[in-house]
Amino acid sequence: MSETRPVIRLRPKAEARAIRHGFPWVYADELVTDRRTKALASGTIATLEDAERRPLATVTVNPNSKIIARVMERDPQATIDRDWIAAKLSRALEMRARLFEAPFYRLVHAEADGLPGVIIDRFGDAAVIQPNAAWSEAMIGEIEGALAEVTGVTTIIKNGSGRARSLEGLAEETLTLRGGVDAPIEVPMNGAIYLADLMGGQKTGLFYDQRPNHAFAARLAEGARVLDLFSHVGGFALAALAGGAREALAVDASAPALDLAARGAAAMGAADRFATRQGDAFDALEALGREGARFDLAICDPPAFAPAKPALQAGLRAYERIARMAAPLVAPGGYLVLCSCSHAADLAQFRAACTRGIGKAGRAAQLIHTGFAGPDHPMLPQLAESGYLKSLFFRLD
Amino acid sequence: MSETRPVIRLRPKAEARAIRHGFPWVYADELVTDRRTKALASGTIATLEDAERRPLATVTVNPNSKIIARVMERDPQATIDRDWIAAKLSRALEMRARLFEAPFYRLVHAEADGLPGVIIDRFGDAAVIQPNAAWSEAMIGEIEGALAEVTGVTTIIKNGSGRARSLEGLAEETLTLRGGVDAPIEVPMNGAIYLADLMGGQKTGLFYDQRPNHAFAARLAEGARVLDLFSHVGGFALAALAGGAREALAVDASAPALDLAARGAAAMGAADRFATRQGDAFDALEALGREGARFDLAICDPPAFAPAKPALQAGLRAYERIARMAAPLVAPGGYLVLCSCSHAADLAQFRAACTRGIGKAGRAAQLIHTGFAGPDHPMLPQLAESGYLKSLFFRLD
Repeated sequence: MSETRPVIRLRPKAEARAIRHGFPWVYADELVTDRRTKALASGTIATLEDAERRPLATVTVNPNSKIIARVMERDPQATIDRDWIAAKLSRALEMRARLFEAPFYRLVHAEADGLPGVIIDRFGDAAVIQPNAAWSEAMIGEIEGALAEVTGVTTIIKNGSGRARSLEGLAEETLTLRGGVDAPIEVPMNGAIYLADLMGGQKTGLFYDQRPNHAFAARLAEGARVLDLFSHVGGFALAALAGGAREALAVDASAPALDLAARGAAAMGAADRFATRQGDAFDALEALGREGARFDLAICDPPAFAPAKPALQAGLRAYERIARMAAPLVAPGGYLVLCSCSHAADLAQFRAACTRGIGKAGRAAQLIHTGFAGPDHPMLPQLAESGYLKSLFFRLD
Repeated sequence: MSETRPVIRLRPKAEARAIRHGFPWVYADELVTDRRTKALASGTIATLEDAERRPLATVTVNPNSKIIARVMERDPQATIDRDWIAAKLSRALEMRARLFEAPFYRLVHAEADGLPGVIIDRFGDAAVIQPNAAWSEAMIGEIEGALAEVTGVTTIIKNGSGRARSLEGLAEETLTLRGGVDAPIEVPMNGAIYLADLMGGQKTGLFYDQRPNHAFAARLAEGARVLDLFSHVGGFALAALAGGAREALAVDASAPALDLAARGAAAMGAADRFATRQGDAFDALEALGREGARFDLAICDPPAFAPAKPALQAGLRAYERIARMAAPLVAPGGYLVLCSCSHAADLAQFRAACTRGIGKAGRAAQLIHTGFAGPDHPMLPQLAESGYLKSLFFRLD
């Protein structure tokens, strides 16, 4: 390791103990931010010391972010290079290969997989990297090379969109780093076939996080009339069709997403059981209510209504409203699945909002299952409070 | 409905709103407990009124319990008889039949299935009833008859043991109500075969609640060396063998439970991959540590260390100790599964205790999965805070 590597230092009252116990972040107000530190380029690799100048960890620094340093390695002398990245990727791959039959999964889930701020989703021979921390933008070439070497993927796309990058001060940019795709990729999951548009879709083209919740819904779907509200490319609807649903209606604001969903249903040979409705979900709920529509299984998987603390109360009201409007559409003895991907709304708050909404609709409920994101979205136990995805399965009388 | 049915009344400041919103219990200090109410026989069916004498619900009263009244039905005029019980059983059966391939499950999970205080576990043609509320003790004949009629089971056992009954002032008593069994029953679950001793076992002979967590562990088990600590009849160990484990060691204090586990392994044709060790689990952890044993998958599923609030701090220390002692036995890249069935320790507290223990053992961890009890253990959303079973799946570096 170079002797000239920059050193940054915690303030006297900052919690060195948290870092020692595995907490991965240093906030700007915990650091001695002298002129030298402020002048560090975003993504610089540095050694973090405690206030008594004892080395704590190898970190990456971003003076433009509230998270001013992220722990790369507990070893303060670690070398961060392509080999180091390859080792992290091998470790991540081993767990996914054990858990999943086919190579379609989130391969790297940022801090929890040892690559701070980096998301990598794998779609067979293709992968999409979201380099959401400055160091990974700077080392994108090393990541690309290590990824091809460890997994054998032949197409690698860099997707530089989303809120996480703007918090780091990174620009929006999506481009092909290696190989290429000229059509949506077929993704087998839970017996269904999804179409993922790696270049034009939301995030990396498909949301793998709901996989176990899709699977649970499929177990409820035999013979059912299914409503998938905020369906995106048909996550719950296609899983329900694979589970034997009589018919499924997917509602989404995005016509391209619904088109991919319909192509997935066709690829499954289930086009005759699948319908779409493009438009606002709340409008659709009202319209379905007026039409007297009834479903045996209704799923609402909206975007984050409470992405951050200031939006919490409004977000909880929106979740309650969804529950109140959706519950009357569920036939007696049917199932209502309510999902939240809001970091700010914890499980108890979200569950309470759903329970209020169902109650205001005059329905009694059992809660039969609570699901989170799948195991290809691991968490650091020290950050587990922020487990963002919650799916609640209610049976309604 | 008889005009002479007793009426009980909430105190002026008691929360009628909670009952209206589906909360199922009235505590003794919320009720006007005059001489007439105190004189009611345990299990009496009564009408609950609010302080303004408006009828709220049909309830069952037990003057000997802290939970002095339990809501049987929101309709204040409901008739509680065999037909009413049969309707609740049909509703419970419909959900289980949809979710499970074979008739082995918890059929009734008390309040959440509309039969307050009643647990019924089904083992194919046999069922075990735990009538843990006074009304169900009084109406055991009606429950037995309805159960046989709705499910077709030919053997029905009443298991009157456990803490819940003593809180209700009910005596210990286990007897055969109908049919009979003369040997442990083979239970197929997650590809494994378990042996359930309906007459002599703990609770109803088998714990169905861990089924989805057994299944998740099985996905990690291919080729693994497995330790199942507090194994009872081999819950995790046999599922891991079904999942392709190289070998599994079950540790339990109960020799009869280990004998059933071994018979299960034999029935699966996996006897040569299965070993048992009878004794105290903490002693076994120490001994395994001294022996330098290493496992690719270690599971600790202890009895409730914090069954109620006064035991919380001691319980959390015990969970931390288990984690600290078990983590060193896990090979690098292996998995540690830590479970709690303590009502008093919530998910965040339990997770923090486990994380501390793993950290004190000097190991870094990812949390890849959090599992709860299976869907045959539904909850009332209003009581969901008490979701007692938590299983945390850690991957250790």
